[in-house]
Amino acid sequence: MCELLGMSANTPTDLCFSFTGLTRRGGETGPHKDGWGVAFYEGKGVRCFHDPEPSASSRIAELIQQHPIKSKTAICHIRQANVGDINLANTHPFVRELWGRYWVFAHNGQLKSFTRRVGMYEPVGDTDSEELFCDVMNQVRQSLPRDAMPKQLTDILVELADSYRQQGVFNCLLSNGDWLFSYCSTKMAYITRRAPFGPAHLSDAEVSIDFAAETTPNDVVSIIATEPLTDDESWTLYQPGDWKLWQLGEVVAEGNSR
Amino acid sequence: MCELLGMSANTPTDLCFSFTGLTRRGGETGPHKDGWGVAFYEGKGVRCFHDPEPSASSRIAELIQQHPIKSKTAICHIRQANVGDINLANTHPFVRELWGRYWVFAHNGQLKSFTRRVGMYEPVGDTDSEELFCDVMNQVRQSLPRDAMPKQLTDILVELADSYRQQGVFNCLLSNGDWLFSYCSTKMAYITRRAPFGPAHLSDAEVSIDFAAETTPNDVVSIIATEPLTDDESWTLYQPGDWKLWQLGEVVAEGNSR
Repeated sequence: MCELLGMSANTPTDLCFSFTGLTRRGGETGPHKDGWGVAFYEGKGVRCFHDPEPSASSRIAELIQQHPIKSKTAICHIRQANVGDINLANTHPFVRELWGRYWVFAHNGQLKSFTRRVGMYEPVGDTDSEELFCDVMNQVRQSLPRDAMPKQLTDILVELADSYRQQGVFNCLLSNGDWLFSYCSTKMAYITRRAPFGPAHLSDAEVSIDFAAETTPNDVVSIIATEPLTDDESWTLYQPGDWKLWQLGEVVAEGNSR
Repeated sequence: MCELLGMSANTPTDLCFSFTGLTRRGGETGPHKDGWGVAFYEGKGVRCFHDPEPSASSRIAELIQQHPIKSKTAICHIRQANVGDINLANTHPFVRELWGRYWVFAHNGQLKSFTRRVGMYEPVGDTDSEELFCDVMNQVRQSLPRDAMPKQLTDILVELADSYRQQGVFNCLLSNGDWLFSYCSTKMAYITRRAPFGPAHLSDAEVSIDFAAETTPNDVVSIIATEPLTDDESWTLYQPGDWKLWQLGEVVAEGNSR
């Protein structure tokens, strides 16, 4: 399996603290050593880093831990390969352009026998995850108008996610830079940090932070992850079938398809 | 304007030496300080780095100079903005997926009033370069079968490049990872390094290298750039209208449309 990390914030925020915790699980405190990737939106642009090396020992991951890249929406993934070899093409998150925006997707789970329906988006690698992403992109492009509202979009995303969940495990994060869609098939948790900000300590490394010193009173920053990343904060668990649409650090739409 | 750098090699080769020279021109020995980007193919995957910061002082560029990323095909660009603001979305090279491969494009020149024809690929930023790339991708997708041969493909690419060249300056590098297409509208040069390998010295930095110590006798590595990068090797200049298709360090097809 793999692990997912997403961030939604109302002000450009770096991911160094959470990224440091997650990447330890890529070969050090966890078995997810088969590559990692992260995408940071910056305006309509997206800055991606992918590496098939274990994140715990990756030189590029080290740079990202130390070099703050500020973003309002970010998606990160560390991989434990099941379907598909360990190589760059199979490293999440995956990116495609739709309607003049970059869409970014990362998946935790497994749908061994999944095959996408016909459409213009095709996988480059051979993971079930990229196959699923291309199916999502094809269905969205074929069934929605270019100016579709978030409501129409989430209806389709949830319908698709529900159908995938019937066929296997499908925890996912998807974004176009304006919003961050999260769907829980088996496990996902989130925490929203806002004033008054306190300290936090990573579960996977002897690293603490005092958010009060890093933020302004108006900041709202939510972190979504397959497993909580800190051991001294109270994370809220998603239930199987829960989905949430995040924007600027807040949930703007949510539901459950138990 | 901007500067382009491409590499085609028959064995995975790092770009550290050439990249170190080119990036000096991004705010130090040259005015191309409005961002930079590089794409390294690794199998069917592609590793991209984009930064709107000047390449001469970019922390990420520094990592790439020091951390050898080996690839058979790479495309690099440093930007001096003309059309489009300085931001991440406007930073080359641009990437789109077509027929299950990532296509990467970088452009030097200007076609101020260019507008792409209708098609599924749309620009995310607002540069003439990305508009051109989307037009190329739309035309290729619409006019060729999925299994088109390089000959059919280059016929279309050259036809498109010729038409763009009539409307402005269009030096470009384009690749899908299997081949590297280069087109010269005003300026481009290349050098092919093969045994016996000698030393080389960068024009833009007090940096020398002895390729004999870095290579094996069978290596063939070609570097294509808008301006030569070394001052002690003899680069071959493209003439306006020259195009070359590179594969594994060798020219496999070429022509001229004077």
